[in-house]
Amino acid sequence: MIVGDDPTARALELAEAAIGGDRRALARVLTAVENRTPLAEAALRRLYPLAGRAHLVGITGAPGSGKSTLVAALLGAVRAAGRAVAVIAVDPSSPITGGALLGDRVRMQSYAGDPDVFIRSMASRGHAGGLASTTTAAASVMDAAGFDLVLIETVGTGQSEVEVAAAADTTVVLEAPEMGDEVQAIKAGLLEVADLVVVNKGDKPGALRTAAQLRAMLVPTVGRSGPADRPAPKRPQVLVTTASTGVGVPELLAALDRHRVAGRSVEGGGARHARAAAQVRAVLADRLADRLRSASLAPLATAAIDDVAEHRLDPYAAADRLLEAIARDSR
Amino acid sequence: MIVGDDPTARALELAEAAIGGDRRALARVLTAVENRTPLAEAALRRLYPLAGRAHLVGITGAPGSGKSTLVAALLGAVRAAGRAVAVIAVDPSSPITGGALLGDRVRMQSYAGDPDVFIRSMASRGHAGGLASTTTAAASVMDAAGFDLVLIETVGTGQSEVEVAAAADTTVVLEAPEMGDEVQAIKAGLLEVADLVVVNKGDKPGALRTAAQLRAMLVPTVGRSGPADRPAPKRPQVLVTTASTGVGVPELLAALDRHRVAGRSVEGGGARHARAAAQVRAVLADRLADRLRSASLAPLATAAIDDVAEHRLDPYAAADRLLEAIARDSR
Repeated sequence: MIVGDDPTARALELAEAAIGGDRRALARVLTAVENRTPLAEAALRRLYPLAGRAHLVGITGAPGSGKSTLVAALLGAVRAAGRAVAVIAVDPSSPITGGALLGDRVRMQSYAGDPDVFIRSMASRGHAGGLASTTTAAASVMDAAGFDLVLIETVGTGQSEVEVAAAADTTVVLEAPEMGDEVQAIKAGLLEVADLVVVNKGDKPGALRTAAQLRAMLVPTVGRSGPADRPAPKRPQVLVTTASTGVGVPELLAALDRHRVAGRSVEGGGARHARAAAQVRAVLADRLADRLRSASLAPLATAAIDDVAEHRLDPYAAADRLLEAIARDSR
Repeated sequence: MIVGDDPTARALELAEAAIGGDRRALARVLTAVENRTPLAEAALRRLYPLAGRAHLVGITGAPGSGKSTLVAALLGAVRAAGRAVAVIAVDPSSPITGGALLGDRVRMQSYAGDPDVFIRSMASRGHAGGLASTTTAAASVMDAAGFDLVLIETVGTGQSEVEVAAAADTTVVLEAPEMGDEVQAIKAGLLEVADLVVVNKGDKPGALRTAAQLRAMLVPTVGRSGPADRPAPKRPQVLVTTASTGVGVPELLAALDRHRVAGRSVEGGGARHARAAAQVRAVLADRLADRLRSASLAPLATAAIDDVAEHRLDPYAAADRLLEAIARDSR
């Protein structure tokens, strides 16, 4: 792999290599996407038209529900079926320390030599354009590199993390019994985004009862209405797995495949449109920020924001002032 | 209170009433801010110049660390000092069911008749412009309405929730012992944003040991570096409280007041500038979205996003096409 000095040329070389199966090149493109380096845009523009074939599966759940073990078990089932699978593990690690929760990777080291398994950790913080948009872009890169299935694993305890999982074609919510009040409320929020609900640790007493309760709870309420831009409440299937032994995992994979087929329908088109809209919005925000950082506008932008910080100007007046300046600057 | 039909006139009336101490008007302005109704902008533009005097305190921590109990105890201490206090409780409730975790409010019902205590729950999801920006705007409204202290309580388990707390003048991170691996990692992320660390449940065995461990852990590492836009690591003070009995709570209030004074310094100016920049960015994103929803641009925007959804166009090309259309449309 020969890599030149020009960022665009380098990006295109890396993108071609990633398409050709070079996993190191793929990793470098993903790093560029995560860090929003100049390489990222050129590489994504090359790769994006090739994406759209993979099945993006979000897997989320409260801490302790066994997400990593389930992801490892799913990897085994997917590989047994001869399919290529990539994993994005969004972890609550720190952008300052650069540390990462490496447990997921360590558990999956048995796939270290398998070219059809690709595992990537991604920090959950420090994404200027939003975590969901960065993750969607990373999934597109893996998709373009030929993976059939992209699993996106998040700790489903925060708004951004839930949004990441919900941006997938199919969203799996993992449940664990015996949680406190606050976690119960988090679970209720999570269930709304679920296409499939999995009660893991199926060998524990109470697992079947939890599954039955969830099935009863998930009966759609007639007349329940939400914001206009949300789809009507659907009734997700409830499955029981024991990820540590693999029980129920082939059934989960089959359910994922069924949902993938269903997702090619009109409803799935709505989800894809929403995901695309979020990606375009993120680029628009970037473009705007770039303009405001340019030499001709930066002094004005800094002054306007200082005025807002000191409450001499309200944020609306500041934004309108900056939009006018951008318009003048473009002429 | 007479409220007319014109949104701007109504907004100004409500804003004046809120400034004058009308809590019902304050609540209506906050609802407008949370739901981004047409009222919100006009009311905020009136109120924003009056804000900037309150001390904004973020309180965050993992589920079970006792945030609500501590907030209730702090309310008692603040009221004993004769100061007016407002609380924004960001809860993991659902935008679909409209439900909310009401425990916080119930616990604080003893202040129901006190005009100098104002408590507001806010859903953690469904904020188009971002949770942090909505919360900052709500805090400005409370600030303008004359509250000396605004406490912003979030479940510190997700990126957005941490950002909300971190947007305050002073960020308090609550700790609880005996958590699993995943929660430990969440805690490590949380500690980075802490100005003050509080080990609550100080009457439990192990609380003092936890505090000692945290003090050791929080020694700033020489040479540790992060992204350029982050301040250098600081060393937060570690306090021990027993919120249920009130032990340590006056000391916490004193520490908050000391940090408030320190926050009027240069470093505090950086935090205020970052918060203002985020508010301006949110308005800019709104303005852009409004333009793209306008009759003249909506068809083009929908078509471009559909093309991205079907991978016929990449998000960068789509964004540039839309920016050009906006520029043409403005002439």
